[in-house]
Amino acid sequence: MKIYVLGAGSIGSLLGALLARAGNDVLLIGREEQVRAINERGLKVVGLEEFEVRPRASVYAPEESPELLILATKSYSTKSALNCARRCIGPETWVLSIQNGLGNEELALKITPNVIGGITTNGAMLEEWGVVRWTGKGITVIGKYPTGKEPFVDKVARVFNDAGIETRVTYNSIGWKWAKVIVNSVINGLGTVLEVKNGALREVPELEGISVEIAREGCIVAQQLGIEFEVHPLELLWDTIEKTRENYNSTLQDILRGRRTEVDYIHGKIVEYAHSVGIDAPRNELLWALIKGKENLNRGSTKLNVGV
Amino acid sequence: MKIYVLGAGSIGSLLGALLARAGNDVLLIGREEQVRAINERGLKVVGLEEFEVRPRASVYAPEESPELLILATKSYSTKSALNCARRCIGPETWVLSIQNGLGNEELALKITPNVIGGITTNGAMLEEWGVVRWTGKGITVIGKYPTGKEPFVDKVARVFNDAGIETRVTYNSIGWKWAKVIVNSVINGLGTVLEVKNGALREVPELEGISVEIAREGCIVAQQLGIEFEVHPLELLWDTIEKTRENYNSTLQDILRGRRTEVDYIHGKIVEYAHSVGIDAPRNELLWALIKGKENLNRGSTKLNVGV
Repeated sequence: MKIYVLGAGSIGSLLGALLARAGNDVLLIGREEQVRAINERGLKVVGLEEFEVRPRASVYAPEESPELLILATKSYSTKSALNCARRCIGPETWVLSIQNGLGNEELALKITPNVIGGITTNGAMLEEWGVVRWTGKGITVIGKYPTGKEPFVDKVARVFNDAGIETRVTYNSIGWKWAKVIVNSVINGLGTVLEVKNGALREVPELEGISVEIAREGCIVAQQLGIEFEVHPLELLWDTIEKTRENYNSTLQDILRGRRTEVDYIHGKIVEYAHSVGIDAPRNELLWALIKGKENLNRGSTKLNVGV
Repeated sequence: MKIYVLGAGSIGSLLGALLARAGNDVLLIGREEQVRAINERGLKVVGLEEFEVRPRASVYAPEESPELLILATKSYSTKSALNCARRCIGPETWVLSIQNGLGNEELALKITPNVIGGITTNGAMLEEWGVVRWTGKGITVIGKYPTGKEPFVDKVARVFNDAGIETRVTYNSIGWKWAKVIVNSVINGLGTVLEVKNGALREVPELEGISVEIAREGCIVAQQLGIEFEVHPLELLWDTIEKTRENYNSTLQDILRGRRTEVDYIHGKIVEYAHSVGIDAPRNELLWALIKGKENLNRGSTKLNVGV
């Protein structure tokens, strides 16, 4: 399959490498440093599997269209990335968002009706330019967005599975997107504010209790929007924590590196959707504000620990 | 006036020293280390004013009754402290709680009807045993608890003012207690979770906005309980932050020293009272859980800053 991966960060590079290894025609579109590294030395996967591939890489989207365009940028870059890639999105191209947070598929739908919503629980970290570490094997769930059956999605799932990316098809991808964002609202919210590994949320009864309350708040918003779940977000939450005990969540990684976080697309979107149906989401709003506070005050390290 | 100060920590030692300097008959009842230091070397005040006094100090409450017993322990020690001091609380003794948090006056009321509720915005820090630093001059407000007029309160206010403790009388001390706990719910909540000085809450718009939401939540609970305010908690909040910009709040100081915090008597009590009138206080509940998480996971320093 002819596949472009838009965003060559950790998850984009991992998927791109696995798909390229399986013989797909893969182009990674990413930042200059990553593109240069891939073109000069190839793309290396380490961790759970170790191999090297030589996919094409570019900072620009070419004019010719792929069959599949995988959106793998940070959510705050989706709009500009889609603008740059617009010219390669042909009438036959399908756009698959595999990103965290809400709102990405909606942006893609402004360009094409061929949109696939996806979530993945695979863990990856960009170790250096050109080297991605596969830290946790998870599942990937994809489906026509927001809902429905679509033969091309089955084809993508076959290509993914053949490439070693365990993938299921759903007819309710919006439900999975919401389940995942609810999981992220808890793990990335509490884990970032407290600067702890995911597993810590199950070590303190008060944190386990408040995790349920935060998840419930997201579920109520989803319910008001008519979203249904195939797997209950709480089940997905405990399962995710169990499988990622030793990981620092992506929002915390961003904070510690002084980078912008995706908090506007996780907690921010839940609050926004809550308001759209006339209710509040105070727990998500407070976590959002606390993380905004960290972005602005604590970049990289808490100042206090230096002085006290 | 014959005065016992129960709890010779920072605020108890400061008040005790000022009252002793003005010629009152003061006995400080506190921990062994502090009592030994005071008996051996006297009690020293540094910072905004500098002087030394030699009040009596003891680890036990004597049998003879004082006119005024000032409760200045941490809120989690009130119950056991009152049990130990019970025998000195005579029919003529008035008990004044100057503590943070809610519930202390209620415990005193189980022993005597002569209870005064008080708040103070004075800042103090125990620098070493026997030495207390007066870090910020504030006001003290006292009144018969929960409400009402009482001549002895006027007498106490005169004694305090004569000692250099700026003090006002209120007929609505429960309103002031609530206003203060709402201020603490914001400053101690956000400041502790983010590990920042009080002033930081006005440096980031998102934190300023969420401060209003947290304060509002406390106000709604108070309103449901029929509490009225002489000064709006938000006004007291901005004023307190302005005057304590450079301070770390007491809950954060406790966390950084690996000590137990008063979170159960600040956020925990607001949540408890909310439930008692059939409503939720999700922001206070989340802050409570986050601080409980810090107490259990982060004692003294955030682990992450060591490793990353």
